[in-house]
Amino acid sequence: MKKEKLKVGAIGLGNRGTSILKYTLIPFYEEGMIEISAICDNYEDRVERGLKELEEKGVPKPFATTDYREVLKLDLDAVVIITSWETHVGIAIEAMKAGIYPGIEAGGAYNVEECWELVETSEKTGIPCMLLENCCYGRRELMAFEMVKRGLFGEIVYCQGGYLHDLRYEVSHGEENRHYRLKNYIHRNCENYPTHEIGPIAKILGINDGNRMLYLTSMSSKARGLHDYIVDRKGKDDKYADTVFNQGDIISTTIKCSGGELIHITLDTTLPRAYSRDFTIRGTKGGYFEETDSVFLDHTHDEFELDRRKIWENAEEYAEEYKHTVWKKYFPKGGHDGMDELVYRAFFESVKNGTNPPIDVYDAAAWMSITALTEKSIALGGAPVEIPDFTKGKWMNRTDIADGDFSLKIK
Amino acid sequence: MKKEKLKVGAIGLGNRGTSILKYTLIPFYEEGMIEISAICDNYEDRVERGLKELEEKGVPKPFATTDYREVLKLDLDAVVIITSWETHVGIAIEAMKAGIYPGIEAGGAYNVEECWELVETSEKTGIPCMLLENCCYGRRELMAFEMVKRGLFGEIVYCQGGYLHDLRYEVSHGEENRHYRLKNYIHRNCENYPTHEIGPIAKILGINDGNRMLYLTSMSSKARGLHDYIVDRKGKDDKYADTVFNQGDIISTTIKCSGGELIHITLDTTLPRAYSRDFTIRGTKGGYFEETDSVFLDHTHDEFELDRRKIWENAEEYAEEYKHTVWKKYFPKGGHDGMDELVYRAFFESVKNGTNPPIDVYDAAAWMSITALTEKSIALGGAPVEIPDFTKGKWMNRTDIADGDFSLKIK
Repeated sequence: MKKEKLKVGAIGLGNRGTSILKYTLIPFYEEGMIEISAICDNYEDRVERGLKELEEKGVPKPFATTDYREVLKLDLDAVVIITSWETHVGIAIEAMKAGIYPGIEAGGAYNVEECWELVETSEKTGIPCMLLENCCYGRRELMAFEMVKRGLFGEIVYCQGGYLHDLRYEVSHGEENRHYRLKNYIHRNCENYPTHEIGPIAKILGINDGNRMLYLTSMSSKARGLHDYIVDRKGKDDKYADTVFNQGDIISTTIKCSGGELIHITLDTTLPRAYSRDFTIRGTKGGYFEETDSVFLDHTHDEFELDRRKIWENAEEYAEEYKHTVWKKYFPKGGHDGMDELVYRAFFESVKNGTNPPIDVYDAAAWMSITALTEKSIALGGAPVEIPDFTKGKWMNRTDIADGDFSLKIK
Repeated sequence: MKKEKLKVGAIGLGNRGTSILKYTLIPFYEEGMIEISAICDNYEDRVERGLKELEEKGVPKPFATTDYREVLKLDLDAVVIITSWETHVGIAIEAMKAGIYPGIEAGGAYNVEECWELVETSEKTGIPCMLLENCCYGRRELMAFEMVKRGLFGEIVYCQGGYLHDLRYEVSHGEENRHYRLKNYIHRNCENYPTHEIGPIAKILGINDGNRMLYLTSMSSKARGLHDYIVDRKGKDDKYADTVFNQGDIISTTIKCSGGELIHITLDTTLPRAYSRDFTIRGTKGGYFEETDSVFLDHTHDEFELDRRKIWENAEEYAEEYKHTVWKKYFPKGGHDGMDELVYRAFFESVKNGTNPPIDVYDAAAWMSITALTEKSIALGGAPVEIPDFTKGKWMNRTDIADGDFSLKIK
């Protein structure tokens, strides 16, 4: 039974939550896709800020609370969970138990057990769950997906990605901004944010749909970036100047897949650098290299050419021909980076149609578990750690996958 | 006692050996630094080609043989070993036993035992040994070294590099060209060529001089690149069309150092791509990124800037100020990539002066052992493998290091 207008609750109104409310949920309300039925944050002032935002845009006043459990008591179709990392999975599980379809923002899991519980709750309740991993809908990520689907790169052998984002300001100002990253960087050491890169790669490699991630190893550098930044910018008398940060500046993780492919991902958030996701896809006939926005194709480009600058920024030449369906449908004139719109649209469409979402509970569990598994591998001196098969064998012959955005089969 | 003109033998006259003879050894002969006293290759025609080359340039005819043991019987000051990878260490050991100072071209070791034997032979005979790793003398590598030495990047935390070089033509034509890579790619699976990246990184991190590599993990992708290339270029009836190549297309290796630094290196030689060594140095105050030839400095560049293209190819702006001494001395007007000249000059200078070379036997053993250690880690499913301390503790307090090209101490 197709629902008409979805009743949606938004849990978590920090930086990301507020941004999603303003630039994604309000436009979907204006489009007529959703009602914003509830908003929630632990902090009263954030709730007030959210209400003000909605009022200014003429959105009817929603139920507002500082207790997410109150949200889950309402008759809602969906909740979007934009809270601190450590509360994502727990709230999603409670939502499914309450019969509400959860969409979870990007983040990693704290242990493998909560990933299993997520999967089992979804299987038991019959309520799907979507990871709102926006980078799966990145323009270049979707272009590369389309190229792989149409065989342009031959057989895919290797993928690479990273969350290469200088967050020293954010982490070092975490106390005044009430940001969850601060405590995570003090206490933990792991690939704490893997899904931006694992997501698009997993879709390209057909992970959970004919392929799976088998095991990984992870290692950490020392942690010096935050200390040096705090002393430099805030002075040696700053409260955090002598803090020992457990989180290594660079985390290097390698993942082996059952199809024989290798994935390498890097977390790089506390040393000075320019932003990149370093999204790289390599096949026997060619590849895409986000770092220089280059496409290299066998026969088209010269394998003996030593000056790689000749292909820098040539990807745009291929963008029109290899435009993904969703990009065609929602951005007919090309344009700005609409990842958030696309991933939330896919979520709301799935809720509306009652279908399995394009990034489902098995994807959420597998991708988020990487965080917990790297923590273990790092603690064990880089020892290989197995990645659970959350589908319990179904990945070899999935029948429940919606004919959606990431089907690798050409009709 | 300083020698005047060195008597040098060249063992190995394949592609690389011939190139070194023509463009490096003959110029050093013309400069008056060396005599080319002997040349040698297993293959008679290569020896003939070498003799012809020398004759054309007016170089006195050297002793010529197909048996390197004949070369080692001569009264030579030095031999340069430019043979197949698997013979490098053995010939170097025999040379030292014969009282001849060996220079070994780039390559990896086949087991840890031969690395120990190399070290112990040098210690016992008192004859030094140099690894002729030319990339240590790369223009950008030396610039980055100078930047690190002068503290521009703060504390170094992470380094990255790769041998990213499409060798599909070379390997698939290995039989007719009598190239040793072919058999290596059929039989082995490892980081088979690590020293181009490990070399410059080790010098920057002070490996064997206050720091050391502790352990590594390594994983391999499947091997599909050569098969697809051979079928595509030579046809499915080619002799090697059905060959199973053990060598994975991508080898991803992570190394932890005693100083807490992380090194990540990639071997990427059998998939289509543009050449790069991906040399990357990251500190708490800045870094160098070879892939886009960029320098990023704290305070100078904007940590919140999301468009990394703004710093692409800005490294040249720093090249003059951070020019390394050897570059100043031998390339006063800047110019072409003179790595081979610089590394051979450093070798001949060390032989002449009887000093420990800037890339010594401990460096050679540590860097070359990476190949054997990755082979083990890959075979064990990515298990961590310890890297031997070939200095037996001397790395904490070296007193035998020449005041050479890679001293990190500022006078």
